[in-house]
Amino acid sequence: MNKGLTRELRTNHGSLELPIFLPVATRGFVKAVPMYKINQMGIVALISNSVHLSITPGLDNIDRTNGINGYTGFKGSYFTDSGGFQILREELVKIDNEGIVFKDKKSGSSLKITPSVSSEIQSRIKSDIAMMLDDCPPYGAPTERYRLSVERTFEWGKMFAETKTPGQKKFGIIQGGFNAELREESSKLMTSIEFDGFAIGGLKIGEPREVTNSVLEKTVNFIPPEYPKYLMGVGDPASIYDYSEKGIDIFDSTYPTRNARHGYALTINGPLNLKNSRYSDDFGPIEAGCECETCQNYSRSALKELLRNEDPTFQYLVTIHNLSFMMKFMDHVRNARERAREISKNFSKFNNGEKITHADG
Amino acid sequence: MNKGLTRELRTNHGSLELPIFLPVATRGFVKAVPMYKINQMGIVALISNSVHLSITPGLDNIDRTNGINGYTGFKGSYFTDSGGFQILREELVKIDNEGIVFKDKKSGSSLKITPSVSSEIQSRIKSDIAMMLDDCPPYGAPTERYRLSVERTFEWGKMFAETKTPGQKKFGIIQGGFNAELREESSKLMTSIEFDGFAIGGLKIGEPREVTNSVLEKTVNFIPPEYPKYLMGVGDPASIYDYSEKGIDIFDSTYPTRNARHGYALTINGPLNLKNSRYSDDFGPIEAGCECETCQNYSRSALKELLRNEDPTFQYLVTIHNLSFMMKFMDHVRNARERAREISKNFSKFNNGEKITHADG
Repeated sequence: MNKGLTRELRTNHGSLELPIFLPVATRGFVKAVPMYKINQMGIVALISNSVHLSITPGLDNIDRTNGINGYTGFKGSYFTDSGGFQILREELVKIDNEGIVFKDKKSGSSLKITPSVSSEIQSRIKSDIAMMLDDCPPYGAPTERYRLSVERTFEWGKMFAETKTPGQKKFGIIQGGFNAELREESSKLMTSIEFDGFAIGGLKIGEPREVTNSVLEKTVNFIPPEYPKYLMGVGDPASIYDYSEKGIDIFDSTYPTRNARHGYALTINGPLNLKNSRYSDDFGPIEAGCECETCQNYSRSALKELLRNEDPTFQYLVTIHNLSFMMKFMDHVRNARERAREISKNFSKFNNGEKITHADG
Repeated sequence: MNKGLTRELRTNHGSLELPIFLPVATRGFVKAVPMYKINQMGIVALISNSVHLSITPGLDNIDRTNGINGYTGFKGSYFTDSGGFQILREELVKIDNEGIVFKDKKSGSSLKITPSVSSEIQSRIKSDIAMMLDDCPPYGAPTERYRLSVERTFEWGKMFAETKTPGQKKFGIIQGGFNAELREESSKLMTSIEFDGFAIGGLKIGEPREVTNSVLEKTVNFIPPEYPKYLMGVGDPASIYDYSEKGIDIFDSTYPTRNARHGYALTINGPLNLKNSRYSDDFGPIEAGCECETCQNYSRSALKELLRNEDPTFQYLVTIHNLSFMMKFMDHVRNARERAREISKNFSKFNNGEKITHADG
């Protein structure tokens, strides 16, 4: 059971029941599904990258629609990350005590993000929850590098928390690599700053699962129970169940959306690889009993046919199903944990982190 | 004004008001939009290629869902063409008096289509309107080749019309190339066979527009007015208006759907090229006053952003808009011809046949 006391998180766009899963919105939009459909489905929170949003559609465009919700049409809450994690994704040009210089792969633009620039960007985006800029070293760095990141993230956290944006909550990020002492130190430093919640950063970046689990448990215990605790970039059902047991109550991932686009449908029995030729003459829905519009209208055979034709309708339909699946799964995580545990077991053999490697069902 | 007497065409799936435009369904499905949405939009007829359907999803699968409507979920009328036109699309292996040997580019399969095979395929598909197998020589062939196609198409027409399929209407196809005498001869021969309607084949295959117009006028005049008259593969607004003036009352084309996927939105002022950077900070809808769900929910700026992100939502949204546009345009063609004429003029400068070459608005 969730060890935190926080069961909901209030934002300007509503109240979020925890634990929650945040689908990833690329430049504000969920890929393959229109935002009015996302609203209709009852999805109440998304996460988007603030640095990418500042490049396109750009802060001037976002200003003109009075924030990101106006631009995209999403009615729920936006979390925005600061881009710190992008250090690991080949977009880093330079990092020092002042901040980070990024290069946007798509546009080629570079820009320098400091804690106050990040705060300003997220303030103009008018996201509901802004994540601080943190320093997240790669897996396998020397202990000194992790120690530096703890100090730097503390300094950046103080600067980030100083600027207040009306209606926006700010989350701190705990670093400290894979060293229990450094994690404890970072937790104490960060929770001394006035934040509304905390992310546990620098995990799931290539380390073995046992290491993640052990570091996570230690870190969570140093965060006072009244704060929401966010494990960024984690969102497969097996991990969500496991980490929610350890007290994590916010998750995000491209897991349901990216897998949908690559042919994987999520079911209570595990992932279904719709590329498999056996589904050509299977006239059942993705999942019997599922009430999503895809399962109400399309057979596995018809979906396989759309995939073969490279019809973008496939991406729309399977994304809709996978997001519906995740919403039901999260409802179980909140209210029917034994059921959530059973379902999560059907995913654990397929998942080591985010990738479905041998999915079929 | 439409010179035909036929104002509607009844099928097993409803009554079609003429003139009508048929969106193209690839292997039964409209690309980028789910079929339940196509039904909700009020689209009542589509055309699909019977030879392609017989390969995938395949006749066995279609049998198991009691026809193509059961397979795809479309509630309206399907027209199916016989594949005769594919001769011009590099799928022909061989043609002789017996029939046509095709090679399916996607699967690599070859199959021989004779008039009775074509009839059998379309019967199992259970389409509402089956087009006969015809012999359509390319533009610029010798007169003898066109004469042969007139005789062959007549023989094939008799064989095709012999097999009756309950609930299915059959259309003949008039050939004769670009020669007035041969067109007259083919019209007289074909209308002597018991068909439910006629297509004018072998046009818009590369000849100058004046040639199309002159041959078309002559051919139409030889078809008794009580029959529906179908110009296959033509569907840009300028051509629809012009040819409906000459008595054509059925059109089909990938024009609205393919152009949507390539970035062109159709408006009463002509096509809008959403790839143009000027739309990045344009917060109006594709078309002011349009009631489609795309225009109600997405700005040009947001659509351009989706296009830049290669998000398949773009294809969904612009296809929805373009199909809505075509439905409204066809309503004008039927009931407000002066308005249809004005709108069609905004397209004529962009269209020579099917391709938008210099579209921008």
